[in-house]
Amino acid sequence: MKTMQDAVGDLDRMSRTIRESDYDAVVAVSPENVNYISDVFVSTQVDIRDRLALIVWDGERAPTFILCAVEEGYVRQESWITDIRTYKEFVTSPVTVLADALCDLGLEQSRIGIELDYLGARYLTALTGLLPSLDVAPCEDLFAKVRMIKSPREREIMTQAFRGTEQALMETFQAAQPGITERDMCYGLSDRILRSGAESVAFSHINAGPNTGFPHMDPSDYELRPGDILKADTGGYYSRYYSNVGRTAKLGKLNDVDRSWWGRLREIHHAVVDMLRPGNAGRELFEAATRLHEKHDIPFPYAHNGHGIGLQLHEYPLISPHDHTVYEPGMMSTVETRVRWPGEVGYHMEDLVEITDGAPVIRSDYFDNEEILVVDA
Amino acid sequence: MKTMQDAVGDLDRMSRTIRESDYDAVVAVSPENVNYISDVFVSTQVDIRDRLALIVWDGERAPTFILCAVEEGYVRQESWITDIRTYKEFVTSPVTVLADALCDLGLEQSRIGIELDYLGARYLTALTGLLPSLDVAPCEDLFAKVRMIKSPREREIMTQAFRGTEQALMETFQAAQPGITERDMCYGLSDRILRSGAESVAFSHINAGPNTGFPHMDPSDYELRPGDILKADTGGYYSRYYSNVGRTAKLGKLNDVDRSWWGRLREIHHAVVDMLRPGNAGRELFEAATRLHEKHDIPFPYAHNGHGIGLQLHEYPLISPHDHTVYEPGMMSTVETRVRWPGEVGYHMEDLVEITDGAPVIRSDYFDNEEILVVDA
Repeated sequence: MKTMQDAVGDLDRMSRTIRESDYDAVVAVSPENVNYISDVFVSTQVDIRDRLALIVWDGERAPTFILCAVEEGYVRQESWITDIRTYKEFVTSPVTVLADALCDLGLEQSRIGIELDYLGARYLTALTGLLPSLDVAPCEDLFAKVRMIKSPREREIMTQAFRGTEQALMETFQAAQPGITERDMCYGLSDRILRSGAESVAFSHINAGPNTGFPHMDPSDYELRPGDILKADTGGYYSRYYSNVGRTAKLGKLNDVDRSWWGRLREIHHAVVDMLRPGNAGRELFEAATRLHEKHDIPFPYAHNGHGIGLQLHEYPLISPHDHTVYEPGMMSTVETRVRWPGEVGYHMEDLVEITDGAPVIRSDYFDNEEILVVDA
Repeated sequence: MKTMQDAVGDLDRMSRTIRESDYDAVVAVSPENVNYISDVFVSTQVDIRDRLALIVWDGERAPTFILCAVEEGYVRQESWITDIRTYKEFVTSPVTVLADALCDLGLEQSRIGIELDYLGARYLTALTGLLPSLDVAPCEDLFAKVRMIKSPREREIMTQAFRGTEQALMETFQAAQPGITERDMCYGLSDRILRSGAESVAFSHINAGPNTGFPHMDPSDYELRPGDILKADTGGYYSRYYSNVGRTAKLGKLNDVDRSWWGRLREIHHAVVDMLRPGNAGRELFEAATRLHEKHDIPFPYAHNGHGIGLQLHEYPLISPHDHTVYEPGMMSTVETRVRWPGEVGYHMEDLVEITDGAPVIRSDYFDNEEILVVDA
């Protein structure tokens, strides 16, 4: 029998945060927060969006899981949550079951935090129609705050996820040769990401030559030529956590232009990575990155320079001018450093960094990109 | 320059339906409806959920596209919509830009249909805060009604999508042999789905032996044995449309038990397919399927027996006891017929059928499954 302690995320911190909040209970609604608490991924929550899955938790008593009856079987097997209440699709509304559960828990007149960014407006209207004394408030920040700090198990999953993707990408670059297409590279990359342990490929922007000048171009029929820069921004889902790796290679020898851009980008990259220490905020890293790009005469027209990552591709904190969150040990952030000239060429690197008590640690350390990877043309 | 007529969906019907509705305008919010109208897939709308993309359309004037500034470049290139208004992430709220657009269009006191299943409650509260005289109503049904009938281009994309997936699956079954794992089959299947033209693999439930008794089990390390039934329920995204194919094979010769179950399932399958004709409703098909399963002594514990499909995996009409929608020419529906004994064995077939003026046409006709496919053990 699974217990709360078996969960991948840190549910002790989650329950404590709920207890210490000014909510009497919270309702998780989004796939990532339902997954975080229950430790089960209800895939239809994503694919068949009306099939709501909800968790009510006051942080004290056992949580209540509300889901479509179709999903009950494996959820009972896989989750540590035992209070499972189901609705029959097209017959009972999930909101009715939620309202009943809140009443059973004595919460019908309480202050309830709900993910109001995610919960469709129509469902909220129905809920407040059934329970007019309910005091509903948004609670995205509570979940984001807890999930920002990764548990040891989450850090392990993410480290393996990034390394698997790095290896897949390195082998794909090494297999590149003149005449194959971007699409061929993409097939090889996707296959290797799956074989590295991913449930699925999340995105695979892998390009060559002039197409490297675009940020997120789909792989095309462009045929690789000797001297082409190869560039990828790619990721998979591993145990429901995202990887997101950026790397650059060259089909042929490096020239002085490559070395000059790459050398300056590496310098900026290392300096930003080194600022991922307790006490600093994303805002400060972004400002430093702005100055560093200016110093090295590299354009910097981006909205962010790296991001938290986990059950979602972009999590907090962000390395952005608007994020005041102070880094703490146990957080994980990507740092992405890049330069692009659309239709000409682009260079890109993106790493996963763990914030510790001391110096930050790059966890995406399988495919070292200190120099641009050279592939024989 | 693209025009509305270049779009994949039938935008003439969409604009006429909006004009004839009791809304003064509608706001598309979900990825599928934004995609349907604009003919552009804004992938971050899915991956980075707060990056809203919205389309306001009265069906008469040109629509207004509201999106994050980061996405403007390719959307301007790819969409026929020219009135594009952007917000800066973390700085301007998309709802503020929406409210401004509604005012510019003279719609600030109108009746506006919004996808209130999808739009987060917090955004609606912000919108009605800015425009208190706005009369907001849900409009999911309007979009569903239009999208139920596929344009010729949609039918062509979906037919090719299903055939590509069928071929990928057939080749994967034919490559199966004792000793390989379900996971090996899944890698081969995923690779072939991508090579058949899919942007990505949507799901790939491919199982063998006792695992075929479960509906949607993830492929495992189970090693195939001679005499195993092989079963798959799989799909990809092709030009943003889903395929969803179900097929059964056997690693070795069929026996009388296989032939008996399969023969009865085929009989039910053909009878249900044949009812996909104008004038019938999903409810009637489901009732007929219930009777047919009883007659053939096959358990039928399911909520539905097939579904519309398109930009979403499950669209209307559904072959379910609750769907009263009458079929019309141009609709597309899957029919899925199956029997399962968990941990023992299962048989599954799922096809795409086009409703026409006359007899229904099975469009998933690459991998004929009249008999269970026999693979040499």
